[in-house]
Amino acid sequence: MQETSAVLETELPQQGRIPPPVLRAAVAGATGYAGRELIALLARHPRARLTRLMSSGRSDKQPFPIAKSHPGLRGLTALQCHPLRGEEISAAETDVVFLSTPHEVSHELVPELLARGFRVVDLSGAFRLKDSGAYPRWYGFEHHAVGALNEAIYGLSEINATAIQSARLVANPGCYATSAILALAPLFSAAWVDRAAGIVCDSKSGASGAGRVPSEKLHFAEVNENCRAYGLFSHRHVPEMLQALAIEEKSFTFAPHLLPITRGILSTIYLRLASSAPAASVADVAKLFHEFYAAAPLVRILDDGALPEIQSVARTNYTDIGFALDAATRRLIVVSALDNLGKGAAGQAIQNVNLMFGLPQEMGLA
Amino acid sequence: MQETSAVLETELPQQGRIPPPVLRAAVAGATGYAGRELIALLARHPRARLTRLMSSGRSDKQPFPIAKSHPGLRGLTALQCHPLRGEEISAAETDVVFLSTPHEVSHELVPELLARGFRVVDLSGAFRLKDSGAYPRWYGFEHHAVGALNEAIYGLSEINATAIQSARLVANPGCYATSAILALAPLFSAAWVDRAAGIVCDSKSGASGAGRVPSEKLHFAEVNENCRAYGLFSHRHVPEMLQALAIEEKSFTFAPHLLPITRGILSTIYLRLASSAPAASVADVAKLFHEFYAAAPLVRILDDGALPEIQSVARTNYTDIGFALDAATRRLIVVSALDNLGKGAAGQAIQNVNLMFGLPQEMGLA
Amino acid sequence: MQETSAVLETELPQQGRIPPPVLRAAVAGATGYAGRELIALLARHPRARLTRLMSSGRSDKQPFPIAKSHPGLRGLTALQCHPLRGEEISAAETDVVFLSTPHEVSHELVPELLARGFRVVDLSGAFRLKDSGAYPRWYGFEHHAVGALNEAIYGLSEINATAIQSARLVANPGCYATSAILALAPLFSAAWVDRAAGIVCDSKSGASGAGRVPSEKLHFAEVNENCRAYGLFSHRHVPEMLQALAIEEKSFTFAPHLLPITRGILSTIYLRLASSAPAASVADVAKLFHEFYAAAPLVRILDDGALPEIQSVARTNYTDIGFALDAATRRLIVVSALDNLGKGAAGQAIQNVNLMFGLPQEMGLA
Amino acid sequence: MQETSAVLETELPQQGRIPPPVLRAAVAGATGYAGRELIALLARHPRARLTRLMSSGRSDKQPFPIAKSHPGLRGLTALQCHPLRGEEISAAETDVVFLSTPHEVSHELVPELLARGFRVVDLSGAFRLKDSGAYPRWYGFEHHAVGALNEAIYGLSEINATAIQSARLVANPGCYATSAILALAPLFSAAWVDRAAGIVCDSKSGASGAGRVPSEKLHFAEVNENCRAYGLFSHRHVPEMLQALAIEEKSFTFAPHLLPITRGILSTIYLRLASSAPAASVADVAKLFHEFYAAAPLVRILDDGALPEIQSVARTNYTDIGFALDAATRRLIVVSALDNLGKGAAGQAIQNVNLMFGLPQEMGLA
Repeated sequence: MQETSAVLETELPQQGRIPPPVLRAAVAGATGYAGRELIALLARHPRARLTRLMSSGRSDKQPFPIAKSHPGLRGLTALQCHPLRGEEISAAETDVVFLSTPHEVSHELVPELLARGFRVVDLSGAFRLKDSGAYPRWYGFEHHAVGALNEAIYGLSEINATAIQSARLVANPGCYATSAILALAPLFSAAWVDRAAGIVCDSKSGASGAGRVPSEKLHFAEVNENCRAYGLFSHRHVPEMLQALAIEEKSFTFAPHLLPITRGILSTIYLRLASSAPAASVADVAKLFHEFYAAAPLVRILDDGALPEIQSVARTNYTDIGFALDAATRRLIVVSALDNLGKGAAGQAIQNVNLMFGLPQEMGLA
Repeated sequence: MQETSAVLETELPQQGRIPPPVLRAAVAGATGYAGRELIALLARHPRARLTRLMSSGRSDKQPFPIAKSHPGLRGLTALQCHPLRGEEISAAETDVVFLSTPHEVSHELVPELLARGFRVVDLSGAFRLKDSGAYPRWYGFEHHAVGALNEAIYGLSEINATAIQSARLVANPGCYATSAILALAPLFSAAWVDRAAGIVCDSKSGASGAGRVPSEKLHFAEVNENCRAYGLFSHRHVPEMLQALAIEEKSFTFAPHLLPITRGILSTIYLRLASSAPAASVADVAKLFHEFYAAAPLVRILDDGALPEIQSVARTNYTDIGFALDAATRRLIVVSALDNLGKGAAGQAIQNVNLMFGLPQEMGLA
Repeated sequence: MQETSAVLETELPQQGRIPPPVLRAAVAGATGYAGRELIALLARHPRARLTRLMSSGRSDKQPFPIAKSHPGLRGLTALQCHPLRGEEISAAETDVVFLSTPHEVSHELVPELLARGFRVVDLSGAFRLKDSGAYPRWYGFEHHAVGALNEAIYGLSEINATAIQSARLVANPGCYATSAILALAPLFSAAWVDRAAGIVCDSKSGASGAGRVPSEKLHFAEVNENCRAYGLFSHRHVPEMLQALAIEEKSFTFAPHLLPITRGILSTIYLRLASSAPAASVADVAKLFHEFYAAAPLVRILDDGALPEIQSVARTNYTDIGFALDAATRRLIVVSALDNLGKGAAGQAIQNVNLMFGLPQEMGLA
Repeated sequence: MQETSAVLETELPQQGRIPPPVLRAAVAGATGYAGRELIALLARHPRARLTRLMSSGRSDKQPFPIAKSHPGLRGLTALQCHPLRGEEISAAETDVVFLSTPHEVSHELVPELLARGFRVVDLSGAFRLKDSGAYPRWYGFEHHAVGALNEAIYGLSEINATAIQSARLVANPGCYATSAILALAPLFSAAWVDRAAGIVCDSKSGASGAGRVPSEKLHFAEVNENCRAYGLFSHRHVPEMLQALAIEEKSFTFAPHLLPITRGILSTIYLRLASSAPAASVADVAKLFHEFYAAAPLVRILDDGALPEIQSVARTNYTDIGFALDAATRRLIVVSALDNLGKGAAGQAIQNVNLMFGLPQEMGLA
């Protein structure tokens, strides 16, 4: 069984030049897909060390090797997975807690963890919306952790890097929201969007985005050779998008679709350029994006009308963005692609933690 | 080896009560996917008899059993596939010719076939656009068969049934176009669409829609676990849609996507209801569609906000249509699903021939 | 909504020449995949009429339109699905009952249904094994319906046609068993197999064979892009194979595998020809099979070393069989392909009922 | 655009503690799937530097950024891909050449490259068989590079590690061969196999194993929802397996199958334990394998009858091996899983180069 930082230690064992890990991480929700991804990324991260794995779904069981749940992790870590009890996470051994847990579980746990001094990256939606009053409508529960909510930083790494660096609580964005916001932020920032014309975001996601809990809708034979829309006018990621882009609900239509693939999101976004936007070609649009993301190592802007595809970003933390423009009518189509478990979940969580701990944001991700 | 109408003959062989087939059909393009589907449907059709199979792609070869090209057809027909030469189709033995051939091949063949007295269903785009001047832009060739073009009937069975019945030449619609037009025709017919707000049609298609000719883009490992947009602002099915719905190009944005499945199209269509449209709920919209398609046995309108999925229509000739409405903002999403080789190609061709020969339109299809 | 025999009635409505249906069928297990297939086949069968649909899994619920459970059946039947209670099946209205139910449910229901005069086709394993003592080992329950068991006919249509014709109770074979027995029966029948050398059957099945009940093992992301063996030395279909072919357990090794597809089984079978077998080429082997299956319209023997593939048989009732022979060492590989829900379940059940009711065995299936 | 070793340089830029790369690598065949994998692995390898990319299939073209061919490599390397001309590889800048080229191309290039002092890892089959006389039968060409052939080391890292360390030319094993040999070597080594009973290896592979050249057989719609056997008694990987395991051809039957997945091989291997083998349980077999692979960090032996699956090894360099035993009859089933592009091609090539350059064999791979 290898140690988690085997590669570097193997390289330079005699020299003792590697500083001790600065980022000791616990993962709650270890038996889910995002949990597995967090473990896989942290186990290979040059400056991280996994300290504790926990699962709420299996909370009545004895600890078990995590590879029992995720056979692909055999050899990568020998850690056991424990029932999720916040009080058993040792503050002496852990710096940051990743919560890949249901919204309600995160809602309960976060205040306690903050109080005990942990920094927290929450992958649920429990701390994403600034307006606590929006929770009953979108999430179906009353929010009682308003202090933590006020403190939470929305963890879209490329947009909020500065605030994330000093955050105690990062609300990791939804996968769909990440794909839409990254594709639109430069345009809204430059006031290039004709808001009155409305924006349509048609997103297509692989099935791992729906989690690992068995259900008829996610049974193999129901997803395979199929595609369907769902959650029209009601998906939970909508309020994040509206909030991040400062758009009115009536101007933004979002429709998610289920693809018969395991990983990846493709978002096709339709809008009209404002008459004031100085964009006469795809190259002008690409230039705006290149400048906006000049310091973002994990966003790739495609030139010359090339369009992203899921295959190029699956199992990475990259977001690819491309464009088509009908200059005569000012209609712009922006297409973005990312991995819903990578940049859409675990990868972005690591990227945020890199920022929180003063490391290069792409460490362990590129 | 069974005869093509084995089932009925087996049932009632001694009684001689089955009238002779009225619909003797030749198929050009027999080695393609739509060709295979035409053969499979015609071989089981109660009133059709296959008379000749031809292929242009393999025109230098000797005749061969069609099951060599399509092993799934073993046992269904013993016909040989011949090189495509229009003059070898016997007018004494064949009533109708299905052309599942490249646009340019159809463009050449159709005038000759009409002159020899055949009725023709052309599955290519060569006779779909009323304006011959549009062919250079959308199809890359000058149209020289303007007489046939003027005569051609656009074969969207549910919309043009009367004209199809007496047509000599039916231009079978594109698969994407069928999915979009069926989903929009009732709304435009009732003047319920806010044309100024624009319409977006985001379509997702299985890979068989791109045909059977090998290419890197359609190599298994390039399509599998992937999804991508293509042909933005330039797809050939756009002018059909504009023509059928009488929309201006600037008001209608169409984006096709490639899905990692073999068969099926899902179109998600975004529009705003006109302020004069008396629609306060999904039920009102569904009622409009139920009435519009009251006589259409192969269109299924979903009630109560249920949404179509590809799996329910794959390998059928059905089109399923469902709706989501945000009544407060009058935003309507229409979702349609069909099989690109069924209703989107071969199935609709059979449906049209049923109309042309006075048979129930769903014969052999339901 | 169309009637179930709409096509024929539409054709010849005025003539009254269609005799009344002879085969009135009830289906228990209507919400499962094999149940759906039974409904789809019976609804289109020229001599069958569906009389009642029932489901045990949802037995506490009110009747509901079956298309709620299987959206693809919209328009094909308007029947409601009822809770499964054997006593509610009307003997006045129903001739045959299809049981696509768990083994234990069939075990309970069959004696009662036979006593009330129904003919029964049971798709479970509850009546497949002649030896009631084998049930605890392979199925985990004691068999208490030994009378019915003694009467049951193993419903492999091509092998047992005569006995099936007069059977009251047909035990429909397992999907894997069908694929293996059809591929081996001609060889054992001709004593061409070197039994001492052992036979290996490596089978690969689509996921619908495991049914529709959600489980982590059948979750989309667990099956997709994956393949695994399971049930080694313990699969329930083994004793059927041994029984049908009269092989000793030690001579026959069976290993099932899960494929990331919805429908179909490919079995690759390895054996050594007996030294007495007069087979010098693949053509000799194919000839044996052609003769053995001369009267079997739904078995297709491939010549010239062509090998079957799942795609050619999916959604059909055909079984394709092909061969490779290393003549020098007498090693023979037999490959068979069928659809696990077609010939492997619902299709074969219909084929058996066709035999039971004096109809051509392929009626409604070819 | 990041440099290839961006992560490490970003971490410790000022300290200059990273020694210069010791392994400067050129890749021929860069536009294929194994080529892409080599580039991706070498670009992230802590001690490698890519120096030149070449492609024979596109040899008439100008150099182009490799990400044009493999969009997923955007951001990982800025290297151009050049036409393949052996003489243009600079001996001053390159230590090792990876050939992921057709057999015939490798056959021509290798002697020249060795003469110029490069060390070579050839991923083709041109140097795998010790007997040059076997090439016409299995590969269809006469071998004219017998000197290089005699010198070549069969690069199955776990079996030949010592010889690989000093090799100038490593013949990287075939993907199927790797999966079979790793699963059988411990058993043959211990003389536990009953050779007279014969061994059957039924292998299932993802489609990327067949390369990237478009063909009808690998067209998406032909592979999807399908499975088929091919190459029975004639696959090129057979002679490697016979050679590595010292088995007679008559005792070993190999049948490859095409799976509808992109990456991965599952091999299910059937044999009988020799009567002298002291194995009474799966645990005894697993113990033999644990001991045999005690020093092999990339082979994972599964205990307790757990069986490998493709998903756990896809996109890794691991080989997973598990077992089922019917102790009474001494029938053993060994199942192995690996990634055909990872351990089956590019990963093993890197592992071999690690051995050749004195690095830990798993460097850049775990």
